[in-house]
Amino acid sequence: MFVIVVYDTLAERNPGILRTCRQYLHWVQRSVFQGELSAAQHRKLLSAIKQHIDPTYDSVLIYRTQGPHHIQTDLIGQPLGNTDPIL
Amino acid sequence: MFVIVVYDTLAERNPGILRTCRQYLHWVQRSVFQGELSAAQHRKLLSAIKQHIDPTYDSVLIYRTQGPHHIQTDLIGQPLGNTDPIL
Repeated sequence: MFVIVVYDTLAERNPGILRTCRQYLHWVQRSVFQGELSAAQHRKLLSAIKQHIDPTYDSVLIYRTQGPHHIQTDLIGQPLGNTDPIL
Repeated sequence: MFVIVVYDTLAERNPGILRTCRQYLHWVQRSVFQGELSAAQHRKLLSAIKQHIDPTYDSVLIYRTQGPHHIQTDLIGQPLGNTDPIL
């Protein structure tokens, strides 16, 4: 599946969730990661995110499509991240 | 189509792009909007975004799927925005 994660967390928790997302996905923009994951990796990612946020304050949205061909992307301006394979 | 916009712009340009996105989409998180658009609305949104950013510095990613049923969303933590119809 193709996954996009966007998060809005208290600044002091940003490094933890950044590290977590980086283990599974590509950084594409401030607070935004994306990449292809298996169902098992997706489950592990959600579980890892839960351990790094305060659910009473933070917000994390995890979008997923069946694959990268089910979603199109337009970029306006600068490409900040990269989409090199990491897994 | 279903559209997600994430942006990383210089702080002084945030209000402009926020206003632009709000005209077409729902705010769901800091720097993240989503919603359903027609092809014409999508074109207008991209054009409006281009007028509000500096492409040599800012970065805006516009994801789209054929419809909301082509993408699933998991939320961890707080729902910040709303998804009431606006258009």
